[in-house]
Amino acid sequence: MAKAPKILILNGPNLNMLGKRQPDVYGRETLSDVEQSCRSRGQSMGLDVDCRQSNSEGQLIDWIHEARDSHDGIIINPGAYTHTSIAIMDALLAAELPLIEVHLSNIHRRETFRHQSYVAKVADAVLAGLGSQGYLFALDALARRLNAQQET
Amino acid sequence: MAKAPKILILNGPNLNMLGKRQPDVYGRETLSDVEQSCRSRGQSMGLDVDCRQSNSEGQLIDWIHEARDSHDGIIINPGAYTHTSIAIMDALLAAELPLIEVHLSNIHRRETFRHQSYVAKVADAVLAGLGSQGYLFALDALARRLNAQQET
Amino acid sequence: MAKAPKILILNGPNLNMLGKRQPDVYGRETLSDVEQSCRSRGQSMGLDVDCRQSNSEGQLIDWIHEARDSHDGIIINPGAYTHTSIAIMDALLAAELPLIEVHLSNIHRRETFRHQSYVAKVADAVLAGLGSQGYLFALDALARRLNAQQET
Amino acid sequence: MAKAPKILILNGPNLNMLGKRQPDVYGRETLSDVEQSCRSRGQSMGLDVDCRQSNSEGQLIDWIHEARDSHDGIIINPGAYTHTSIAIMDALLAAELPLIEVHLSNIHRRETFRHQSYVAKVADAVLAGLGSQGYLFALDALARRLNAQQET
Amino acid sequence: MAKAPKILILNGPNLNMLGKRQPDVYGRETLSDVEQSCRSRGQSMGLDVDCRQSNSEGQLIDWIHEARDSHDGIIINPGAYTHTSIAIMDALLAAELPLIEVHLSNIHRRETFRHQSYVAKVADAVLAGLGSQGYLFALDALARRLNAQQET
Amino acid sequence: MAKAPKILILNGPNLNMLGKRQPDVYGRETLSDVEQSCRSRGQSMGLDVDCRQSNSEGQLIDWIHEARDSHDGIIINPGAYTHTSIAIMDALLAAELPLIEVHLSNIHRRETFRHQSYVAKVADAVLAGLGSQGYLFALDALARRLNAQQET
Amino acid sequence: MAKAPKILILNGPNLNMLGKRQPDVYGRETLSDVEQSCRSRGQSMGLDVDCRQSNSEGQLIDWIHEARDSHDGIIINPGAYTHTSIAIMDALLAAELPLIEVHLSNIHRRETFRHQSYVAKVADAVLAGLGSQGYLFALDALARRLNAQQET
Amino acid sequence: MAKAPKILILNGPNLNMLGKRQPDVYGRETLSDVEQSCRSRGQSMGLDVDCRQSNSEGQLIDWIHEARDSHDGIIINPGAYTHTSIAIMDALLAAELPLIEVHLSNIHRRETFRHQSYVAKVADAVLAGLGSQGYLFALDALARRLNAQQET
Amino acid sequence: MAKAPKILILNGPNLNMLGKRQPDVYGRETLSDVEQSCRSRGQSMGLDVDCRQSNSEGQLIDWIHEARDSHDGIIINPGAYTHTSIAIMDALLAAELPLIEVHLSNIHRRETFRHQSYVAKVADAVLAGLGSQGYLFALDALARRLNAQQET
Amino acid sequence: MAKAPKILILNGPNLNMLGKRQPDVYGRETLSDVEQSCRSRGQSMGLDVDCRQSNSEGQLIDWIHEARDSHDGIIINPGAYTHTSIAIMDALLAAELPLIEVHLSNIHRRETFRHQSYVAKVADAVLAGLGSQGYLFALDALARRLNAQQET
Amino acid sequence: MAKAPKILILNGPNLNMLGKRQPDVYGRETLSDVEQSCRSRGQSMGLDVDCRQSNSEGQLIDWIHEARDSHDGIIINPGAYTHTSIAIMDALLAAELPLIEVHLSNIHRRETFRHQSYVAKVADAVLAGLGSQGYLFALDALARRLNAQQET
Amino acid sequence: MAKAPKILILNGPNLNMLGKRQPDVYGRETLSDVEQSCRSRGQSMGLDVDCRQSNSEGQLIDWIHEARDSHDGIIINPGAYTHTSIAIMDALLAAELPLIEVHLSNIHRRETFRHQSYVAKVADAVLAGLGSQGYLFALDALARRLNAQQET
Repeated sequence: MAKAPKILILNGPNLNMLGKRQPDVYGRETLSDVEQSCRSRGQSMGLDVDCRQSNSEGQLIDWIHEARDSHDGIIINPGAYTHTSIAIMDALLAAELPLIEVHLSNIHRRETFRHQSYVAKVADAVLAGLGSQGYLFALDALARRLNAQQET
Repeated sequence: MAKAPKILILNGPNLNMLGKRQPDVYGRETLSDVEQSCRSRGQSMGLDVDCRQSNSEGQLIDWIHEARDSHDGIIINPGAYTHTSIAIMDALLAAELPLIEVHLSNIHRRETFRHQSYVAKVADAVLAGLGSQGYLFALDALARRLNAQQET
Repeated sequence: MAKAPKILILNGPNLNMLGKRQPDVYGRETLSDVEQSCRSRGQSMGLDVDCRQSNSEGQLIDWIHEARDSHDGIIINPGAYTHTSIAIMDALLAAELPLIEVHLSNIHRRETFRHQSYVAKVADAVLAGLGSQGYLFALDALARRLNAQQET
Repeated sequence: MAKAPKILILNGPNLNMLGKRQPDVYGRETLSDVEQSCRSRGQSMGLDVDCRQSNSEGQLIDWIHEARDSHDGIIINPGAYTHTSIAIMDALLAAELPLIEVHLSNIHRRETFRHQSYVAKVADAVLAGLGSQGYLFALDALARRLNAQQET
Repeated sequence: MAKAPKILILNGPNLNMLGKRQPDVYGRETLSDVEQSCRSRGQSMGLDVDCRQSNSEGQLIDWIHEARDSHDGIIINPGAYTHTSIAIMDALLAAELPLIEVHLSNIHRRETFRHQSYVAKVADAVLAGLGSQGYLFALDALARRLNAQQET
Repeated sequence: MAKAPKILILNGPNLNMLGKRQPDVYGRETLSDVEQSCRSRGQSMGLDVDCRQSNSEGQLIDWIHEARDSHDGIIINPGAYTHTSIAIMDALLAAELPLIEVHLSNIHRRETFRHQSYVAKVADAVLAGLGSQGYLFALDALARRLNAQQET
Repeated sequence: MAKAPKILILNGPNLNMLGKRQPDVYGRETLSDVEQSCRSRGQSMGLDVDCRQSNSEGQLIDWIHEARDSHDGIIINPGAYTHTSIAIMDALLAAELPLIEVHLSNIHRRETFRHQSYVAKVADAVLAGLGSQGYLFALDALARRLNAQQET
Repeated sequence: MAKAPKILILNGPNLNMLGKRQPDVYGRETLSDVEQSCRSRGQSMGLDVDCRQSNSEGQLIDWIHEARDSHDGIIINPGAYTHTSIAIMDALLAAELPLIEVHLSNIHRRETFRHQSYVAKVADAVLAGLGSQGYLFALDALARRLNAQQET
Repeated sequence: MAKAPKILILNGPNLNMLGKRQPDVYGRETLSDVEQSCRSRGQSMGLDVDCRQSNSEGQLIDWIHEARDSHDGIIINPGAYTHTSIAIMDALLAAELPLIEVHLSNIHRRETFRHQSYVAKVADAVLAGLGSQGYLFALDALARRLNAQQET
Repeated sequence: MAKAPKILILNGPNLNMLGKRQPDVYGRETLSDVEQSCRSRGQSMGLDVDCRQSNSEGQLIDWIHEARDSHDGIIINPGAYTHTSIAIMDALLAAELPLIEVHLSNIHRRETFRHQSYVAKVADAVLAGLGSQGYLFALDALARRLNAQQET
Repeated sequence: MAKAPKILILNGPNLNMLGKRQPDVYGRETLSDVEQSCRSRGQSMGLDVDCRQSNSEGQLIDWIHEARDSHDGIIINPGAYTHTSIAIMDALLAAELPLIEVHLSNIHRRETFRHQSYVAKVADAVLAGLGSQGYLFALDALARRLNAQQET
Repeated sequence: MAKAPKILILNGPNLNMLGKRQPDVYGRETLSDVEQSCRSRGQSMGLDVDCRQSNSEGQLIDWIHEARDSHDGIIINPGAYTHTSIAIMDALLAAELPLIEVHLSNIHRRETFRHQSYVAKVADAVLAGLGSQGYLFALDALARRLNAQQET
C-alpha cells in the first residue's frame, strides 16, 4: 500500500490567538478547530496533514528545513512575517516543495505595508480572504498537484 | 421551488486567447473549456453560472452594472485591467455583490507593475496561481457564502 | 436670429448609477434628473445643452472629437478616467474648446490615487464637491465665457 | 426678523496684490473690487459677507478661530498656504463650519508643488480656475446649504 | 506565386485627428494620407498593408488578436495608450508577431508621463520623432525581417 | 536664597481652542486649565513656570529667542508647526536650552504627514499621547535635569 | 482587599546590554537597576510590576499573548524591533491592553530608519529620550489610567 | 541730481541672533554690524540701502509688497523660509524687481532638507557660503545691473 | 556644383567591440562594417559621411563642438553615456544641428537604468532596436530634412 | 605562553542547508565542511575558531552579546537577516569587536532587496561572492588585525 | 618679496563654447575674454591666476591633483559634471585647498536634474547667476581668505 | 613551460593620490607600494600582474577592451566611477573575464550615493574595507579560479 503524502500546514505569529479575541469579528473558530478540519479533510483525501504554529521566525525556518526531507507539500500562513521575512522566503525556496500561501483576510484591503509579500514570490499559489476555507482549498489544490505528479 | 442563485463570471482582456497560444506553457484548455467546467460545477451546486469575456473596459463595466439587479455574486479575472482600472473597481463597489477575484497565474511572481491590484481593494477574496481550478474554488466559496446568508 | 451655442455635457464611467445605489449617501437624484436640470438651466441661458454618458473610454474620445466641429464648449465629469486616461486628456486638448471639469464629490478627501487628474491639466476650471450644482455653475461659467468671446 | 447668516471670506498671502501687477495677465480687478462684488451678491441673497485678507498665517488662523462662534460659513482662498499649512487646515477643522476653497487660477495646470492642497482635505468643495466668479459661486453654494439646514 | 506578407498598421487614440487640428504644428497630412503612403510603399515592396484606427482600447486588442492568425507583422502607434495599457502590451505579446512601435513626435521631449512605454517592453524596435516617415521605415524594417525569415 | 529656575511653556497653533471644541473627544479641560496645572506643579518643584500660546510662527520664534537669556528650559507643543517649521527648529537650536517636545495625542497614529517632526530633531525628549499629563512629566524631567546640572 | 493591577514591562533586543557597554555614554545603570526602580515605584503606587527582557521576537510575542489574560497594562521598549516588527504590533493589538512605548534615547535624532515605529501605531502614548525615567512616567500614566477605569 | 536707487535688504528668521550665539563658530559680527557694512558699501556706490529683519513670514511678505513701488532691487536671506515658503516666492515674483538670494553658509553642505530653495526659483542669482561678504557682492551685482539698465 | 552636406556619425563607449564579442548574439558585423555601409549609403544620397568612435566622454564632446562649424547633421549612438551624460546633451544642444539618436537594441526592453536618455531630450528623433539598419534610416531622415531646408 | 585569540564565526538563517540542496549550483560542500576548514586554517594561524549557526535572530543576538567578553573578533554571514535586522546590527555595534561580513554569493547581482545591508553599516569589511573562501580570507584579515593591535 | 598666491580657475565641459553660440542669449563674451578679465583682476590683487578648460572629466581630475602642490586655491565651474561627477568631488576633497564653485546661470531655475551639485558638497562657497562677474567675486573672496590665513 | 596567466589590476580616479594625502587616515602606503606588493604576490603564485591607473573613464574602458584578448582576469577598484559609470560596467561585461571588484574602505559605511555599484552587477566578487590587503585576496581568488579552470 502506497504511503499517504504528507502535508505540513504552518501558521505564523499571532495565529494562535485565533478565536480568542474579538469573536464578533474573527469568529469563534480557534486555530485548533481549523487544524482539526484540515486533518479531517486531509484524511478524506488520503493526505497525512501535520499542523504546527509558532510565533518565532527561527522555529518556522527550522520546520521548513525539516519538511524538505519528510513532507510532500507546504501550506503556510506566515502572518505578519509575510511582509518582512526574507529568511522564511529563502527557507521555502530551499525546501523545493509545492507551496501554497494562505491568508484568512484579504490583505490587499488592509494597510499598505501588508500589500507586499516576500513569500508570494516563491509560492505556487496565494489564497486570501476566504477565512479558514482557504486552508481546505489549498489542501485540495496540493492533492490534485501531487496526484498529477504521481501519474506522470 | 427556490430560484437558483445567479453568478456572473467575468473574464477581462486577452483571456479569450487562453489555450490558443503557447499550449506548452498555458496548457491546451481554452476559455470555452474553463467556462464549461464552471457551468457544470455551478449546476452541481445549484448555481446558475453566466460567463462573459470582453477586451473592452467599458463593456465589462456595463455588465457589472447589469449584474447589480440580476445576479447574486461576481467572480472576476480582470486580466491586465486589474492593475490599471479604477473605473472597474468603482463599478464593482457600486454592484454591492459578493466578489471574488481570480488570476490563473501567481501575479506576485511576475513584473512589479502586476503586483498592484485595484480590484483587490474591493474584493472579498483573491485567488491567484491555481489555474482554472481557481474559478471552481471561487464558486464553492460564493455558494457557501450565499447559503450562509440564506440561513441567517 | 443667432444660433444658440451648443454645450456638450459628458459623464464618464459609473455615473449612470447615480441615484441608484446608496440613496442615503448620494441622494435620490438620478443622472437623468441631473441632465434634465442642465438642459433647463441651459435653455434659460440660451444654451443648447447636449448630455451623454458612457462607460467606455473610446466612446468618450469619439464624442469629444465630434464636439470639436459641432459644439462650443465641454463640461466633463470623467469619473475614474480622470486619474488614468491620458487619451481623454489628449482628445480634450485636440478639441480646442472651452472646458470645465466637474466632480460630484471633493476628490481631494478620498483615496490618494484620486488626487491626480490628467484632465485638470487641460481644463480651464475644476469644480469638485458641489454635487449636481457643480454642473449648473459650469454652465454659468461657460455661458459667461462664450458671451465675452461674442462681445470681443 | 431672522438674522442674516454671516459668511467670512478669507484671502491669504499675495492676494492683496490682485489687479496691481501684470493687469494684462490677471486683469484690472483689485481685491477690493472682488470683495465689493461678494458683499453685493451676499446682500442680494440675504447673507452678511465679511471680507478679510492677510499675508500672515497666524492672523488667518486667529480669524478662523473667531469665525467659529460668530460666522455661519467660510470661503477661503489660502494662496500659497494652500500647499504648505497644516496649521490652517487644523484651524478650519476646528471651526466646524461649512467651508469652500476657491482659487482664481486652475492650480493643477501650474507647478507640481501647487497640486497638493492641505485645505482641500477639510473643505466641502473646491473651485479653481473661475477667476473672481469662483467666490460668487461659492457664496451661492453656501447660501443653498444654509437654507437647506434651516429647513431641516 | 507566393502570397504577399500581410502587415497590420494600427493607430490608437486621437490619431484620427491628424491633420485636422493645428496644421501649422502637425502639418496638413491626414491619417488617411499617411495610410495611403503606407499602402503604396507596401505595394512596392510586395507587402499587403492593412490600416486601422480606433480610439477604443478593447477594439485595438480585438484587432491584435485577429492579426495573430491572419497577419505577418504589426506596426503600432498606440497613442496615449502607450503609457497606460498593460492590456495592449499583453495582447501584442500573445500575437507573437514581429512588432515595431512608431511615434510621430519624440515622446522623450514631452511630459514625464509620456516617457514610459509599456508597448516598448514587447516591441522589436521603437521609432519616435520621424513624423509619418516613421511608418515607412517600419515597413522597410519588417520587410527585411520577413525576407530574412523566408531565406532561413 | 537661590532664584527659582524659569521654564517657558510654549503652545503653538490651534492649542488655544483646547476644551472649546468637541469636549466629548478632547475633554473639557481648556488651555488655561492646563497652564494653571503647570504653574502649580512648577511652584511645588521650585520652578517659575511661564506659559504662552500663539498661532503665529514668527511670534513663537521671537519668544524662543527671548528665552535664551531669560529662561532655563523650554517645553514646547508646536502643534502643526511640528511638521513644517524649519525656522522654529533653528530658533530652538539657537536657544541652547534643555528642550522637551510634548503632544497631547499620539501623532504616530494620525495622518502620515504628522509623523515627521522637525522639532524632534533638536529636542532632548519627546512625549506624545499622554494628554495634559505630558506637560507635567516634562516639567518633572526638566526639574531633574536642572538639579543634576546644579549639583555638578 | 482589591488585587493590585499587574503591569508587564517588556524590554526587547540589546537592552540586556544596558550599563555594560560605554558607561560614559549610556550611564552605569544596568537593566537590572532599571527594573528594580520600576518595581519599587510600582509598589509605592499599588501596582504589581513584572519585568522581562528577550532578544527573540517570538518570545516577546509569546509574553504579550500571555499578558492578555494575566496583566492589566503593558510598557514596552521594543528596541530595534520597533522599526521592523509588524508581528509584535499585531500581538500588542491582539492583547487589547493599555500600552505605552518607551525609548531611552530620542529616536528622532538618530538614523532615518529609526524614525518609523510600527509599535507606535498601536500604542496609547510614546515617550522617548528621558532615559530610565521614561519607564517611571509610563508607570504613573498607566496607574492614572487604571484608576480612572476603576472609578468609572 | 538723480535720486539714488533704493535697495531693500531683507533678513528672515533667526538672523537677528547673528553674533549672539556660538561666536567661535559664526563669528562675533552681529546683524547690526552686517547691516552697517551694507549701508556703508551702498553709500560708496550711490545706493540707498534699507535693511530689515523679521521672524514673521507675513511681515516679510508685506515688506516685499511695499518694495514693489518704493525700491529698485531686493537682496534677501530668507533663512529657513528658503526651503518652505511658497508664499515668499510668490511675493518676490509679484515684486518684479532685480533679486539676489544670499546665504551666510553653504547650504548644500548641510541637511538634505536645506538643499531645496523655493526663493532660488525666482532669484536672478544665488550666493552661498561667503559669510557677510555675500551681501556686499550682491550689492555690487545689483549696482552693476541698475547702471546697465540706466545706460540702456 | 553644390558641396555635399556633411554628416557626423558618432559612436560612444563599447561600440568598438561590435562584432567582436558574442557573435551569435550581436552578429558578426563589426563597427567598421557598419561605418562602411553608412559611407556607401551616404554617397548614394549625395552625403559626405564622417564616422568616429570614442570611449571618452570628453573626446565625444570635442567632436560635437567641431561639428557645429563643419558638419550639417549628427547621428549619435551614445552607448552607455545615453543614460548618464548631461555634458554630451549640453554639447549637442550647443551644436544646433539636426540630430538623430540611434541604438542597436531596444533599450526599453533592458534594465530600468537604460530607460532614461538625456540625449533624447535634445534629439529630433530616436531609433532603437533596428540593429545597424537604424543608422541607414537615420541617414535617410537627415537627407530628407536637409533637402527640405534647401528647398525652403 | 600567550592565549590564542578567539574568533566567533556566525552563520545565519538557511546556511545549515549548505550543500544539501542544488549541489550542482551551490556545490557539495556542507556548512560542516566549511566550519572544519575554518577551524583548520585558524589553528595554522594560532587562532581559536568557534563556529555556530542559527535560524533564530534572537539566538544570534544572544551569541553576539556573549562574544563581547569571551571572543576577540567576529566573522558573520547573516544570511537574509543582513537586509532586515536592525537588532543584529545593534548587537554587533554593542559587541565592540573587529567584525567582517561574509556572503557566499555576490549579493549585488541578486534581487534589489538584497542590495541593502544593515550589518555592513557596522562591519569593518565586507566580502561577497568568494564562496567558502571568503571565510578564510576573513580569518586572515582578522589575524593580521589582531597582530597589529598586539604589536602596538 | 613674497611670492604671489596661485589660483587655478577650471572650466568644465562646453564652457569653451561661451560667446560662440546664441550671442543674443549668452552675450558675445568668450571664455578667452572671461579668462583675460580674471587674470587682470588677479594681477591687481597680487594673485597669479592660471586658467584651464577641458571637456574631459579625467583631465579635470588630473589638473586638480596637480594643483594640490602648486596652487593656493581653486575656482571651478564644473559645467554639467557638477551634477554627475563624484570623481571630481573626490579629487577636490583630496586637493585640500580653498574652493569656490561658480555657475554663469542660476542653475536652480533650470531643469530639476541641474539642482543637485556634488561639487557643492565640498566647496566653501557657491555663486550662481552672476554671469562672468561670478568669477571675479570668487577671486575677491579667495584673496580675502588667503590674506586672512597669511595674517594668522 | 606553460605561460603565466596575466592579471590586469585597474585603479580608477583619485587612487593615484593614495598615501599622498592625510597619511594619518589612509596610511603612508602609496599606490606604487600597493602595485609592487601585488606584483610580488603575483610572482609567488605564478601570475603575471599588470597594474594601471587612470582618472579618465575612457582610458579605463580602452584598457578593459584590450584585456579581453591579452589578459586572463581583471581586478578593478573603479573609485568614484563605481557609482556612476554604466559604460565601464558594459566594458567589463564585454571583456568576458573573471572579475573582482575591490574597495579600500567599506563603502557601505559612507554616503548613500556610494552604496550603489554598477560594477558589482557584473563582478564575480566584491571585497570592501580590507585596505590594500583586498588586492592580494583578489589575486588569490583569481589564481584559485584560474587553476580550477585549468584542471577542468
